[in-house]
Amino acid sequence: MKNYIIPHEWHIIEEGFDPHLNKISESIFSLGNGRMGQRANFEEAYSGETLQGNYVAGVYYPDKTRVGWWKNGYPEYFAKVLNAANWIGIDIKIDDEVLDIAQCAVTNFKRVLNMHDGYLERSFTARLKNGKEVSITATRLCSIVDKEAGAIKYAITPLNFSGDITVTPYIDGDISNADSNYDEKFWEHVAHAEDGNDVYLTLRTKKTGFEVCTGSRFTISGSSAKVINTLREKYVASTTTVQVQQGQQTTVYKYAANVSSQNYAPANLPDACKKVIAEVSAKGFDTMLAEQAAAWHKKWEHSDIVIEGDVKAQQGIRFNIFQLSQTYTGSDDRLNIGPKGFTGEKYGGSTYWDTEAYCVPFYLGTAPQQVTKQLLIYRWKQLDKAIENAAKLGFDKGAALYPMVTMNGEECHNEWEITFEEIHRNGAIAYAIFNYIRFTGDKDYLNDYGLEVLIGIARFWKQRVNWSAAKNQYVMLGVTGPNEYENNVNNNWYTSMLACWCMDYAAECIAYVKATEPDKYMDLVIKTAFNETEETTYWKKISNNMYLGEDKAKGIFLQQDNFLDKEIIPVHDLPAADRPLNQKWSWDRILRSCYIKQADVLQGLYFFSDKFDLDTLRRNYEFYEPLTVHESSLSPCIHAILAAKLGMEEDAYNFYLRTSRLDLDDYNNDTEDGCHITSMAGTWMTVVEGFAGMTVSNDQLHFKPFLPKQWKGYSFNILFRGALINIKVDANGSHLTTDKACEVFVSGKAYKLTTGQTILAE
Amino acid sequence: MKNYIIPHEWHIIEEGFDPHLNKISESIFSLGNGRMGQRANFEEAYSGETLQGNYVAGVYYPDKTRVGWWKNGYPEYFAKVLNAANWIGIDIKIDDEVLDIAQCAVTNFKRVLNMHDGYLERSFTARLKNGKEVSITATRLCSIVDKEAGAIKYAITPLNFSGDITVTPYIDGDISNADSNYDEKFWEHVAHAEDGNDVYLTLRTKKTGFEVCTGSRFTISGSSAKVINTLREKYVASTTTVQVQQGQQTTVYKYAANVSSQNYAPANLPDACKKVIAEVSAKGFDTMLAEQAAAWHKKWEHSDIVIEGDVKAQQGIRFNIFQLSQTYTGSDDRLNIGPKGFTGEKYGGSTYWDTEAYCVPFYLGTAPQQVTKQLLIYRWKQLDKAIENAAKLGFDKGAALYPMVTMNGEECHNEWEITFEEIHRNGAIAYAIFNYIRFTGDKDYLNDYGLEVLIGIARFWKQRVNWSAAKNQYVMLGVTGPNEYENNVNNNWYTSMLACWCMDYAAECIAYVKATEPDKYMDLVIKTAFNETEETTYWKKISNNMYLGEDKAKGIFLQQDNFLDKEIIPVHDLPAADRPLNQKWSWDRILRSCYIKQADVLQGLYFFSDKFDLDTLRRNYEFYEPLTVHESSLSPCIHAILAAKLGMEEDAYNFYLRTSRLDLDDYNNDTEDGCHITSMAGTWMTVVEGFAGMTVSNDQLHFKPFLPKQWKGYSFNILFRGALINIKVDANGSHLTTDKACEVFVSGKAYKLTTGQTILAE
Repeated sequence: MKNYIIPHEWHIIEEGFDPHLNKISESIFSLGNGRMGQRANFEEAYSGETLQGNYVAGVYYPDKTRVGWWKNGYPEYFAKVLNAANWIGIDIKIDDEVLDIAQCAVTNFKRVLNMHDGYLERSFTARLKNGKEVSITATRLCSIVDKEAGAIKYAITPLNFSGDITVTPYIDGDISNADSNYDEKFWEHVAHAEDGNDVYLTLRTKKTGFEVCTGSRFTISGSSAKVINTLREKYVASTTTVQVQQGQQTTVYKYAANVSSQNYAPANLPDACKKVIAEVSAKGFDTMLAEQAAAWHKKWEHSDIVIEGDVKAQQGIRFNIFQLSQTYTGSDDRLNIGPKGFTGEKYGGSTYWDTEAYCVPFYLGTAPQQVTKQLLIYRWKQLDKAIENAAKLGFDKGAALYPMVTMNGEECHNEWEITFEEIHRNGAIAYAIFNYIRFTGDKDYLNDYGLEVLIGIARFWKQRVNWSAAKNQYVMLGVTGPNEYENNVNNNWYTSMLACWCMDYAAECIAYVKATEPDKYMDLVIKTAFNETEETTYWKKISNNMYLGEDKAKGIFLQQDNFLDKEIIPVHDLPAADRPLNQKWSWDRILRSCYIKQADVLQGLYFFSDKFDLDTLRRNYEFYEPLTVHESSLSPCIHAILAAKLGMEEDAYNFYLRTSRLDLDDYNNDTEDGCHITSMAGTWMTVVEGFAGMTVSNDQLHFKPFLPKQWKGYSFNILFRGALINIKVDANGSHLTTDKACEVFVSGKAYKLTTGQTILAE
Repeated sequence: MKNYIIPHEWHIIEEGFDPHLNKISESIFSLGNGRMGQRANFEEAYSGETLQGNYVAGVYYPDKTRVGWWKNGYPEYFAKVLNAANWIGIDIKIDDEVLDIAQCAVTNFKRVLNMHDGYLERSFTARLKNGKEVSITATRLCSIVDKEAGAIKYAITPLNFSGDITVTPYIDGDISNADSNYDEKFWEHVAHAEDGNDVYLTLRTKKTGFEVCTGSRFTISGSSAKVINTLREKYVASTTTVQVQQGQQTTVYKYAANVSSQNYAPANLPDACKKVIAEVSAKGFDTMLAEQAAAWHKKWEHSDIVIEGDVKAQQGIRFNIFQLSQTYTGSDDRLNIGPKGFTGEKYGGSTYWDTEAYCVPFYLGTAPQQVTKQLLIYRWKQLDKAIENAAKLGFDKGAALYPMVTMNGEECHNEWEITFEEIHRNGAIAYAIFNYIRFTGDKDYLNDYGLEVLIGIARFWKQRVNWSAAKNQYVMLGVTGPNEYENNVNNNWYTSMLACWCMDYAAECIAYVKATEPDKYMDLVIKTAFNETEETTYWKKISNNMYLGEDKAKGIFLQQDNFLDKEIIPVHDLPAADRPLNQKWSWDRILRSCYIKQADVLQGLYFFSDKFDLDTLRRNYEFYEPLTVHESSLSPCIHAILAAKLGMEEDAYNFYLRTSRLDLDDYNNDTEDGCHITSMAGTWMTVVEGFAGMTVSNDQLHFKPFLPKQWKGYSFNILFRGALINIKVDANGSHLTTDKACEVFVSGKAYKLTTGQTILAE
């Protein structure tokens, strides 16, 4: 855990330069716009510890799988987010000495991530070995207006000399991926070009053949010095030397663009890139920055959470929302939300069940419904691959198993206990369809996309269970639940419960589509060779005769068969030195213990909270939470929400603390690899679904708020069925406003909201 | 499956050269002497498909572990059998054309492994591209008399020309290991030297620092041509050119030696090597061959099994015995029996539980007791490492967990479900002590070595179980039984049963040692900080209150908890196209199925056959065998023995067929990687413990023979407590002879045997 980020309501601030923290800051201060992004690497040369990272969304490489022992069914390849050409580089020489702050005396170092306006600013004074002092201010943005563009304003002031400064803005395509399995490089050179001060570099990924053209233009304020371009394999640069006077600022502007063959024919990439460069440089940096700020202000209007009386909590929640908004914008249904977003390359893939279980609620509440719909369509487009994936494991007849980790629909992961067994992910994908429709009311989604996915998933579950003669019920053998500290268990309650729900929900949706769009339904029946009577009857038979373990004496659902054979010792009785278990204990010991990584039975009680009474929830919470080590970043949020529901406000608040500043304070000592993007959505859920108790049922929006005693108040907006509703919770109660007349429920009581009026629900 | 080996009672014969079979033959025709060995690679150059392999026992390299996803507790390194310097090479040039049978027209090719006399002979006629024809006969031995030496006689006859033949015997140390994780080379050059026609090369392994000096001397019959030595890094050779007359044979003799720093100070290696070379070349090839034959005849006296009326069965069993005898001789307690012996490098390590469960019975029956004792002492010497290994997983107080795979006592394997969970191996190590004492009567072994090991193992089991409040019994969670098609199961009957037996047996042995050697006992108590009363009381408490699953209705023991939740469909109802499952099914499907890789419950009923009545055995056999796919080479033998015990003679015979020619007929399509050395001991057990029904109980040797109807008769020797007893089973009954008066039981009836007399038990 670290404590170096300076609290501020809208800014992330680092003061003073500590090389040991640099990789952490590179992650935290990352920029992105949904289409591309990069870590907060320095523009100028840096010979200290750094993890260079530039990413172009959707551009991946299938790295050959590395395992010790092969199991049939493993994917041959692991699709990785690619580290792409570095477009931010600007080499600086002061009278022949390279500016490299690892080699200088650095003072006044300050890095600010301005979340309100969407840019990064870094300033410092460096005294070089040659004794010369310069003051630098570098301002960078990754435009959410011009989504293929970024821009840098790099201002240099000689403090104690007049002389020559040589500036070399460059694009470097000779890129290594830190997470490569076999130390390969993944990009090959295609072409480079120059046009005045503009330079262009086109690279192609091996195997996948994505082409990305990266271009840049630079200008220097008030200089007409000669520019020499350098073009070599995988590298383009422009160099110029300016004579500077002591105290006089020289400002370099670098406008850059990344255009990719996902959006253009490869032959057109250079022209497309030139066009973007021309457009943004015509605007100029200040206009870009102003447009960026305006666009961010609009995003914040929908998504901001205001917390009063706790600056660190305020900074934390905004950082989470800011990073989520930088990662995914819903503008492209081929994209998804990587676990590290544009802040690192670890884990590969871009899509986990995190998207459906955690991110969907965030985007539903804070963005137009189209944004979440794109996330759903992404999975619909990958249905064929999910069917192939299931076939690889031995399933047939259109059964679909969505991958645990994917980039393009193919499975990327290769641990048998996860890849083959953590199949509850399939349920989360069905649940997200249900959740989307529940929130938006857009049942038509079923007709166009949703039902086909639900049928594939229901078919999978039907084949995945088997009849147990011993139990005289259907059972689900060999699974791993959300609690990955148990592997290959039988009858994981959450998975079995979710499977039954999927089959029931699919059957229910069939009835809806058949009734409302019979033609579309018939098309689907033919496309999927669907035998409605036979298949739905079978689904119901399974759902009605599924073994769902419970211990009647304790009044709890059993996480899995024989869970109570374990020694049950609460986490608080473990020596502190044993925590976190995943670092201190052998895998053997973890597996045999009763300790739970993240919500498992409780995840089911969260998903299906309307099916279980509070007493049932309480008994299960009181049994399982004390055994839970919350060693997944996805764990505290679900527990916070359930604790809030149970009126355990202190617990809820403590869980909030664990999640909201996870990366800012480097809680798990791994932020240097990148930020935990998907769990940031859980932080949002903690406030909105936990503290404010937001739910949707019967097409109506409900709140059941409480105010953590550490706060004066909090407020946020929810986009619900065309209305932007604001709720502000303080000591007086809940203050509600809307931009469109609507009805909401607070603690079970209905309130009619009209525009221009604030209603207080006490 | 292949069918190219020509049946012969004492020889393995290949006729005609088929390059596609070459790697298989390289495995099958391997030579070894317990100290070193090599695949049947050609002496002359060969540009076709080949797996070059030369091995020096005990010389290994800790290759960095390769996994996809790290689990705490995994070993950092995987110790590998090393491919060592090639000492067999003899390059031949016929008037400037290199002899390479991949580039020639080859006729009359014949390869013979003479198992009776212990050598390999290969002859062929080659017509080179230059039109010249030569006839070659290469005879090679790996001496079991001079255990650091090998020798080659290489005879060349020009058939259609007179001219120059250039001969270059060499030692090549620039060796790759096919099984290297990161394509590294593991040997570094130390030194080379020459001395007349002798050349020497010393190499050192990276990390482990083993040094091996390989030397050779060569002579050519009747030639005094000039010899030029070549010495370069990792390579030494001698070259000479002889003028040959058509039809006149030239014979090259190459005497080679491998001496290792395991047995000599590194500085003395060159002298030691020279000494061996001098000795064997003074003997000459023909003397070496004669001594080799005599030594093999002596080995066969003890170990041969004669089968009458079935040449293929005869060839099969002798091949198994021959390879086992080439692999391990018991002369060095640092060595063990690698799964591929000296026939390949796959799987690394040298020691699996195969040694204790399968090989120990073979060596007990066929070799002096010291041979098996060395295998036991090997584990005793590695007890500290087993305690360290257990500590790594979280066990303490002297608990020992022997590794799944090892070279030097450290764990080599890295699949969590095996490494951490297939802990029954610990039981096999205790069982081997019991088995050794049962067979030999050498209870003193306990005093000197055995008890310390048993205490470490019992301590492990004590900590590995936990009390289940739900079952009100001790349970063993998270294990993998011998049936590796189930992972991370609870209460595997075999493991739990074996654990209880270990604790009981340890307690029993404590009483013995305390009574017979109180001083040694006290030393051990101090050394191991043993608290007899407390620890043995706990062991008994566990053993008396252990949950051992059974299904009373079916009258069977349960392989694991909830086994009967599976769909139970006999193997014979599976489509043939689905077999073998491990190639055709995903791991997911295998795990969830009822199919069993190898004896599991039945392995327990084999080990403890005196604890269970025949009806119990029959019920379990009839339930489990039909679910068993026998996809481990270790499976058929146990089933054969149990089938024989149950009077199911046809089944027993069929299982024999599956095991005895596994490698000769390349049954599993993987012989090219090397032979399945340890399962060869199972073949021997099938005949001796299965067909002949040999057991030892109450210090007495019992037989209960039957004659498979496909055979006229069979006979073998057993070395039992100083007597070499021969039993010959034929249509008339069992004919017994001995070299020392003793009593044996046949079908429950006692027979007194005296020397010089054959007794017939009908």
